[in-house]
Amino acid sequence: MNRNPDSSASASYPGSRSSAGHQAPEDQSERHMRGLANLARVDGHGGAEVLAAVEAVSPDLARYLVEFAFGDVYARPGLSLRDREIAALTALAAQSAWPQFKVHVRAALRAGLTRNEIIELVIQAAVYCGFPTALNALFATGDVFAAMEEE
Amino acid sequence: MNRNPDSSASASYPGSRSSAGHQAPEDQSERHMRGLANLARVDGHGGAEVLAAVEAVSPDLARYLVEFAFGDVYARPGLSLRDREIAALTALAAQSAWPQFKVHVRAALRAGLTRNEIIELVIQAAVYCGFPTALNALFATGDVFAAMEEE
Amino acid sequence: MNRNPDSSASASYPGSRSSAGHQAPEDQSERHMRGLANLARVDGHGGAEVLAAVEAVSPDLARYLVEFAFGDVYARPGLSLRDREIAALTALAAQSAWPQFKVHVRAALRAGLTRNEIIELVIQAAVYCGFPTALNALFATGDVFAAMEEE
Amino acid sequence: MNRNPDSSASASYPGSRSSAGHQAPEDQSERHMRGLANLARVDGHGGAEVLAAVEAVSPDLARYLVEFAFGDVYARPGLSLRDREIAALTALAAQSAWPQFKVHVRAALRAGLTRNEIIELVIQAAVYCGFPTALNALFATGDVFAAMEEE
Amino acid sequence: MNRNPDSSASASYPGSRSSAGHQAPEDQSERHMRGLANLARVDGHGGAEVLAAVEAVSPDLARYLVEFAFGDVYARPGLSLRDREIAALTALAAQSAWPQFKVHVRAALRAGLTRNEIIELVIQAAVYCGFPTALNALFATGDVFAAMEEE
Amino acid sequence: MNRNPDSSASASYPGSRSSAGHQAPEDQSERHMRGLANLARVDGHGGAEVLAAVEAVSPDLARYLVEFAFGDVYARPGLSLRDREIAALTALAAQSAWPQFKVHVRAALRAGLTRNEIIELVIQAAVYCGFPTALNALFATGDVFAAMEEE
Repeated sequence: MNRNPDSSASASYPGSRSSAGHQAPEDQSERHMRGLANLARVDGHGGAEVLAAVEAVSPDLARYLVEFAFGDVYARPGLSLRDREIAALTALAAQSAWPQFKVHVRAALRAGLTRNEIIELVIQAAVYCGFPTALNALFATGDVFAAMEEE
Repeated sequence: MNRNPDSSASASYPGSRSSAGHQAPEDQSERHMRGLANLARVDGHGGAEVLAAVEAVSPDLARYLVEFAFGDVYARPGLSLRDREIAALTALAAQSAWPQFKVHVRAALRAGLTRNEIIELVIQAAVYCGFPTALNALFATGDVFAAMEEE
Repeated sequence: MNRNPDSSASASYPGSRSSAGHQAPEDQSERHMRGLANLARVDGHGGAEVLAAVEAVSPDLARYLVEFAFGDVYARPGLSLRDREIAALTALAAQSAWPQFKVHVRAALRAGLTRNEIIELVIQAAVYCGFPTALNALFATGDVFAAMEEE
Repeated sequence: MNRNPDSSASASYPGSRSSAGHQAPEDQSERHMRGLANLARVDGHGGAEVLAAVEAVSPDLARYLVEFAFGDVYARPGLSLRDREIAALTALAAQSAWPQFKVHVRAALRAGLTRNEIIELVIQAAVYCGFPTALNALFATGDVFAAMEEE
Repeated sequence: MNRNPDSSASASYPGSRSSAGHQAPEDQSERHMRGLANLARVDGHGGAEVLAAVEAVSPDLARYLVEFAFGDVYARPGLSLRDREIAALTALAAQSAWPQFKVHVRAALRAGLTRNEIIELVIQAAVYCGFPTALNALFATGDVFAAMEEE
Repeated sequence: MNRNPDSSASASYPGSRSSAGHQAPEDQSERHMRGLANLARVDGHGGAEVLAAVEAVSPDLARYLVEFAFGDVYARPGLSLRDREIAALTALAAQSAWPQFKVHVRAALRAGLTRNEIIELVIQAAVYCGFPTALNALFATGDVFAAMEEE
């Protein structure tokens, strides 16, 4: 039985590395370009705003966000963007990271989740994280929906 | 603009309640039966084991698990079971709830996630929760895959 | 020795279920009515405000809050409301859920805890959760006391 | 309106300090003796075991546990020991600190909470912290009850 | 091999207690004076502000902050103040305790950490706690740096 | 006033990128080699063991650990390895990530922290994270010291 489930997926894209050690070389600028593209695809205009805010204090942390989070992880083909945003919203709610949660409510809508599905994720958080977390996630979600009405 | 996104979904199943206050009455045994059915559908044999372990200490907490978590929330049609398990695994990893995480690795596979997709969720946890959480989630995942080989 | 400590308490109220499987049927509206009554008893005017805020985004999550949290759990006779609010304040501080913590400072006072006892809980949080959490809980408590002076 | 709720309670025991700055001097050995006495009163034999385990690695951390946690905070008269253990169990469950949670299940019983009341606190944790935390707290509680049967 | 690593350090300052049980007596006012001195040394003007805010609601919690946190722990010679602030910033970021994190950005600068070193700690938090925590820590850091520009 | 504190440090090593956008290209194998070297330097034999355990389930997560955590972040010159391990231990204790905490007790000793300094960090965790976390960190530390005696 194959116990390395991602080896099949890992061979097929730039920067991947099979379990046997073969590595496809690429330079940093490819990772950076891919990262910027994914950041725009995922977060739209909001992503550029976050990046600018991070760069203002630490250009290097901004670079890691672009290259590792978006150039490496979000670029991986083994999970759809829609699935990734389900996980992102849940992780952010579980950690009460409300600024990022709000950014990802918008990213989730861009990725194809409906408003109703986002609410369903919040309702499920009541079971997995408790009602306080779920309520705060719901209020953050409502804030984003309301702001979108104003735009 | 409609700001009650779940009102359309809420009218269509037993126990739902529209925003106007209309409520479909049902007694506890319907919720209970639906919950037991969902528990079996989601967690398979593992769910019955967890339920027995909970009942041994608190029959009432077991009942709430069946009726609220599985009879109410997991029964909701607005989010697929596969999507629910993506969220479940992520919430459990974020809280380091490893016993439940392991149960839900199996539930996720039953719900249609592949082993590779589960690994992808763990990799994404490195971005959202940090490498320590991701590593512990990965080890728990590997433990389940190994145990499944033995079965 | 009896290892099901709540079986004796569980037989005595609507919706309870003994360990032998006997279940007292009730329909959803009883749970809902009981929940609304408990929400008012526990949170007073603040509870209605929270409920309205939740309903504005998700009528179903509001219903679960009323029916499960207040209709089922808060209705249980095995623990006094005063004891429940000691636990509620502590759980909310431990999770840094400050909006809900503030609502429950008022609920705790309604339940019979004195202002001094609430402060004692916050002081004890310095031991169990650390000084940062205790300080933030203290500031939230002070905010509520100050707001009450204005009313 | 008096906004220093603990000033009245603070004047009445050794080491207290009123808001006006008057301080009742005591030396370290009084705090230490009081702490050891409270540790025995609260945790019984289990407390001595924990203290020995801590002293084996850090005599100073053991001293702070005795003097600050038990000599100062647990000695405060403004909250009963039973109330303190309700808060302790909840804080420990919220943080998934299972070794300490198990010690405090025994402390809670010594403080006058019944087994059923402890189970009620765990059930309420399902609302405030989510079902995963509540289940893990329930299993820890069941482990302690089972161990007590063996003694 | 000596398994009590702090016994050598513990004998050398007031209030210390060797593993053999010998204890140097001191009264509360020495701990209090030492605590106030350390609070000023560590947090400067910000510390006095925090203390006043705490005293306004609980003079006793303020006293414990001064006497235990600063009079006992921060006074210990076994770790430099600079090292303590590295740990303080990290613990506060990990718990998302942003008000205290901001106070300690200033304390860290006073303790000899450079702005760049504080940013490095935040970047490392992306690895250990995830990017959401790191971003929120970065924004809090940037807020403090900006406020310092205004002073 | 320069508000980009890491720009000066960022220009001086491979892969860095100044705030003006200039980027020094390197391919993946340089990051990978640097990461393996740092992993060995930081974690010694324990690091190779962890890496192998991660690779057994996800070669890609292992690669990110090596390349991002150790090749990028740990390679940064702006903070010493000793300082990094102070932060690592604290972050791991704050998250109760005990397997990784134990690995980093050894890494901290390799980085120049003494056993006594590690104990001091644990004692300080009692202030910042509460006594439960500090006790669990202390027991984990004691376990590592004891295991080292056996080697």
